[in-house]
Amino acid sequence: MARYDFASDNTAPAAPEAIQAILAANTGFASGYGTDKVSAQAADLVRALVDADAEVRFVASGTAANAVSLAALARPFEAVLAHRHAHICTDETGAPGFFGQGVGLIGLPGASGKIDPAALAAPLAAPDLSHRQSPAALSVTNATEYGTVYTAAELAALTAPVKAKGYGVHLDGARLANAAAAGFDLKAIPGLGVDILVVGGTKAGMPPTEAVVIFDRAVARRFDARLKQAGQLPSKGRFYAAPFIGMLSDGALVRHAAHANAMARKLAAGMPFRVVHPVEANAVFVEMDDARLSALHAAGWFVYRFLDGSVRFMCSWATTEAAVDEILDAVRRLA
Amino acid sequence: MARYDFASDNTAPAAPEAIQAILAANTGFASGYGTDKVSAQAADLVRALVDADAEVRFVASGTAANAVSLAALARPFEAVLAHRHAHICTDETGAPGFFGQGVGLIGLPGASGKIDPAALAAPLAAPDLSHRQSPAALSVTNATEYGTVYTAAELAALTAPVKAKGYGVHLDGARLANAAAAGFDLKAIPGLGVDILVVGGTKAGMPPTEAVVIFDRAVARRFDARLKQAGQLPSKGRFYAAPFIGMLSDGALVRHAAHANAMARKLAAGMPFRVVHPVEANAVFVEMDDARLSALHAAGWFVYRFLDGSVRFMCSWATTEAAVDEILDAVRRLA
Amino acid sequence: MARYDFASDNTAPAAPEAIQAILAANTGFASGYGTDKVSAQAADLVRALVDADAEVRFVASGTAANAVSLAALARPFEAVLAHRHAHICTDETGAPGFFGQGVGLIGLPGASGKIDPAALAAPLAAPDLSHRQSPAALSVTNATEYGTVYTAAELAALTAPVKAKGYGVHLDGARLANAAAAGFDLKAIPGLGVDILVVGGTKAGMPPTEAVVIFDRAVARRFDARLKQAGQLPSKGRFYAAPFIGMLSDGALVRHAAHANAMARKLAAGMPFRVVHPVEANAVFVEMDDARLSALHAAGWFVYRFLDGSVRFMCSWATTEAAVDEILDAVRRLA
Amino acid sequence: MARYDFASDNTAPAAPEAIQAILAANTGFASGYGTDKVSAQAADLVRALVDADAEVRFVASGTAANAVSLAALARPFEAVLAHRHAHICTDETGAPGFFGQGVGLIGLPGASGKIDPAALAAPLAAPDLSHRQSPAALSVTNATEYGTVYTAAELAALTAPVKAKGYGVHLDGARLANAAAAGFDLKAIPGLGVDILVVGGTKAGMPPTEAVVIFDRAVARRFDARLKQAGQLPSKGRFYAAPFIGMLSDGALVRHAAHANAMARKLAAGMPFRVVHPVEANAVFVEMDDARLSALHAAGWFVYRFLDGSVRFMCSWATTEAAVDEILDAVRRLA
Repeated sequence: MARYDFASDNTAPAAPEAIQAILAANTGFASGYGTDKVSAQAADLVRALVDADAEVRFVASGTAANAVSLAALARPFEAVLAHRHAHICTDETGAPGFFGQGVGLIGLPGASGKIDPAALAAPLAAPDLSHRQSPAALSVTNATEYGTVYTAAELAALTAPVKAKGYGVHLDGARLANAAAAGFDLKAIPGLGVDILVVGGTKAGMPPTEAVVIFDRAVARRFDARLKQAGQLPSKGRFYAAPFIGMLSDGALVRHAAHANAMARKLAAGMPFRVVHPVEANAVFVEMDDARLSALHAAGWFVYRFLDGSVRFMCSWATTEAAVDEILDAVRRLA
Repeated sequence: MARYDFASDNTAPAAPEAIQAILAANTGFASGYGTDKVSAQAADLVRALVDADAEVRFVASGTAANAVSLAALARPFEAVLAHRHAHICTDETGAPGFFGQGVGLIGLPGASGKIDPAALAAPLAAPDLSHRQSPAALSVTNATEYGTVYTAAELAALTAPVKAKGYGVHLDGARLANAAAAGFDLKAIPGLGVDILVVGGTKAGMPPTEAVVIFDRAVARRFDARLKQAGQLPSKGRFYAAPFIGMLSDGALVRHAAHANAMARKLAAGMPFRVVHPVEANAVFVEMDDARLSALHAAGWFVYRFLDGSVRFMCSWATTEAAVDEILDAVRRLA
Repeated sequence: MARYDFASDNTAPAAPEAIQAILAANTGFASGYGTDKVSAQAADLVRALVDADAEVRFVASGTAANAVSLAALARPFEAVLAHRHAHICTDETGAPGFFGQGVGLIGLPGASGKIDPAALAAPLAAPDLSHRQSPAALSVTNATEYGTVYTAAELAALTAPVKAKGYGVHLDGARLANAAAAGFDLKAIPGLGVDILVVGGTKAGMPPTEAVVIFDRAVARRFDARLKQAGQLPSKGRFYAAPFIGMLSDGALVRHAAHANAMARKLAAGMPFRVVHPVEANAVFVEMDDARLSALHAAGWFVYRFLDGSVRFMCSWATTEAAVDEILDAVRRLA
Repeated sequence: MARYDFASDNTAPAAPEAIQAILAANTGFASGYGTDKVSAQAADLVRALVDADAEVRFVASGTAANAVSLAALARPFEAVLAHRHAHICTDETGAPGFFGQGVGLIGLPGASGKIDPAALAAPLAAPDLSHRQSPAALSVTNATEYGTVYTAAELAALTAPVKAKGYGVHLDGARLANAAAAGFDLKAIPGLGVDILVVGGTKAGMPPTEAVVIFDRAVARRFDARLKQAGQLPSKGRFYAAPFIGMLSDGALVRHAAHANAMARKLAAGMPFRVVHPVEANAVFVEMDDARLSALHAAGWFVYRFLDGSVRFMCSWATTEAAVDEILDAVRRLA
């Protein structure tokens, strides 16, 4: 039997709080394109989450949310600075370039998915040259692709020099809930100079939905038209907003993420292979050769080799302790 | 109290069959990006609906589904022929040009939303000139924006000369269910030379979801990458596929559309104003001056003046007979 | 023998002043990408021409110059207001949408190529709606496609309400020299709120070259990168700059245009057919049926039916009085 | 006095043969957009150069010629394989992504600018995955950015596996003349499976002009519209075609390139610093520290540090033996 429990955090079903909120919202007629009361209520909850009077929109796709955001911050002949293994650089089929008509990506190094602050210096100091795409924005991801979590201070060390240049900042929060559960203070985000934040719903245990939070009012101008043209202004907006109500009303978002993080710690603790990145969120990366990975696949467990060559195990709100024990059993048999 | 019952067919909630299918699908872990069993089952049902061995994908947005399809059929320096009041021409914020990097739209005339076949002759016969965008595809909509329904023969009269030129055909089926309920034979679609069909879920009573049906295998190549880059390859694909299972398993899709169409006929029958387009699907368009429209708004009923100057009343699966009676009462008070 | 004398103003060879300036500039080594002394000198002359401290770049293509300019003034989900028969709307193969990733064009009516000021009111007053592209800029053309010339006051009547909305203004000056020769005061341009002006070199008698004049410093930021990415930052910049030196140093630009305008007047005066637009610049449009047009073609004279159904005769710096007499002879034989 | 003799091969003036051909072509009226006799004659000469019945167009910009070509061979969700230091990857401000709406570039390694054939294996063998841009074309450059020259057999080793996959091949021939002068057989190009070739005019000693040679008729369809939309279909086409007549009629193209190559060899022979790449065409790359480079600049000689950290000296048709001696003197003073 194929087991996708640890393949990704998007293999999980939706959490009951999200589903219940959809059922509750699915009543009567509602005005379209995000102008309904469900969307308004959800937006209030997102604003409260980050403690800021920002514009909030709910969209279907994290890839599109990121790409549309970057297109709002950088023009085609400019570039976005990001960790070289950031999702926008490696896993979105060039969506930033598609939505941004060729907008460039400048991949930066840094251990375990965190951008090395020293790596920012050169691109920020480089003179504008006409034959290359100069930076116009920074994209950071928290929690990172490698399951590590920036502190607010660490992010500030990245965003401060970027804002000093007048450039924009995008925060990819596909796993923001996991970062929050690991201690990252969401209310610090506005103070970091973030212009656009994407709060991930999908990986946090919702049906597909992401909240786009626009802190900069100039960037927000005509954003609905921007979204509509990009196929990200849903007519039945309540279906993307309602899950956030379910997950934010009583803290389920962070509570579920805390569970996912705990499952990752439990998994890491039992691993017979070397764990190669700090386990701060919901991922565990281990050193494993091809033969063992194939054997694990053959045993029915789908996990994947990642960009850095290690093998990734993802936990989610739906990961059970029993499943952790089961996969650890399977892994130990390989060792 | 604001009433959106007749404002659009996307103001309705989702039908119970769609919701139940989501609940049924929301169990256990599933592989991502449309490779799951729910997506496979739903694709089978869509293939059966049109009786063709086509590729089927489920996406979040009708605007994006249309625009991505057109980008697959026409290059930036080419154009798409469409009714001048087609949704792609008037209501999608230029999405075809955005996804297709400037792909042109050539608006054609025709009564009540149906393209006049005679209007195709000139653009199809025009020589390729370098300073204008020559046609590469035709986009047709069934049911049309004006609530009329093409017969298969009528569509064939449009698609045949287009296919004879080697051009592509896109069928915008945002309201395909309403067309089917009005007698349009869905199994005739493959024979019409349609390359890409979008089967509307959202307006048919589902949560946001659309099925993209690709009949031409050459067009289908690398389509998942095309969708992913465009933000339309959902990781949790089952949430977009499941509603189609619920609505197609026992005929709910067409049954609900038949109800919507019947409500439109009832509404038209009771209208004290001149109905300006044949009522063949779920829309009624009437002649109404601004003062009366404002009064109707003031009475709480939101309906909108359309592109042709008439006022549109849309029915949906959720429209009740009582609501029809209520709005007719309100309208009669204006007359 | 095929005669293209009146087919367009780009069928003419380059004027001796332009050629001599290229020969003079073609000596020794020069730094690249517009940083050379020839480019600097030509830019000074263009600044003097419009009496403004603007940024000036020299590019190869008028189509690209216009499209790049519009992309700098309107985002993909916005639109540009222009005469519905403006070159950008009808003769550039959708270049604005290509360079601007789907940026919209809103075609406005107006007699003889001049935008009717009353036609601006509706689009400027329309509320921003997410499902359509709201205007962000106005593009005007002087002299117009129909050989008419706006006065500065007429242009101000168009640009003032546009600037009052905070929108941008682009002036397509492919035939600016002809407008100047007809009395249009080039030094009035900065006061009109023009953000980007394209001064046509090609149609004015130069080898292919156009000057892009950027009055708004914010728009000018990183413009060289914008041009380079768009294939419009020539490495050997002096070849595009030098012709402007030759044509601006001693007034040849306007002198040649005055000749072209005079030839058009002479042509109009001798026409046996109805002239349908005021002859203010270098074009004459006449009523002529297909049989007569074909006969004229058969006689070797290539002129073309234009968008409004009339037949266009263009004059240029190189049009001779003898040629006007010859084509008038040929035309009279048709009458 | 600033000396740009060795800064690039585009700092040189145009060769007399090219200029004379422009003067000869600059007579009388000519039909527009490349339909004139000069363009036809030049196209014949280019066809003879590569001994193939290909479509030929003359455009203003090498950057645009490359980017338009790549857009014809790869769709936005696909990628182009190229040397990681190819001009399209490093020096064109992301033009391929701009013209190709985000088309990806996969940078390959290889010594001295030549792609290591072994490096092709992995990307060609990789399965199509929806979350990344799969290759659709290969771009090769001859002579390379590092002044080395592929033999036909070396290119065949790269193109054969690419064509076997059904992918396209683009040959950036910005310095094709230098490759030819070094022994590369231009008539071998059609047999290599090249779909689009760009023959550089600018760096070969012409005013700005490049010939786009389209070997694949399917790719050539509506290419003029593609070029027009991209701002690369010049109305006065003869000015871009004529230089090729001047340079191809009596072999000046290769003769001048042979001179440039000889100057590079002379320069290399006299260099007191280590030459780090084989000197096969018109470039010399040497090891030089920052202090010495600054001193050379201070002495008036502009040369630049290149992507690999070495300092580049370019020769051109216009490089004199005296200039080589002079710069060698200056360089020796640094050693």
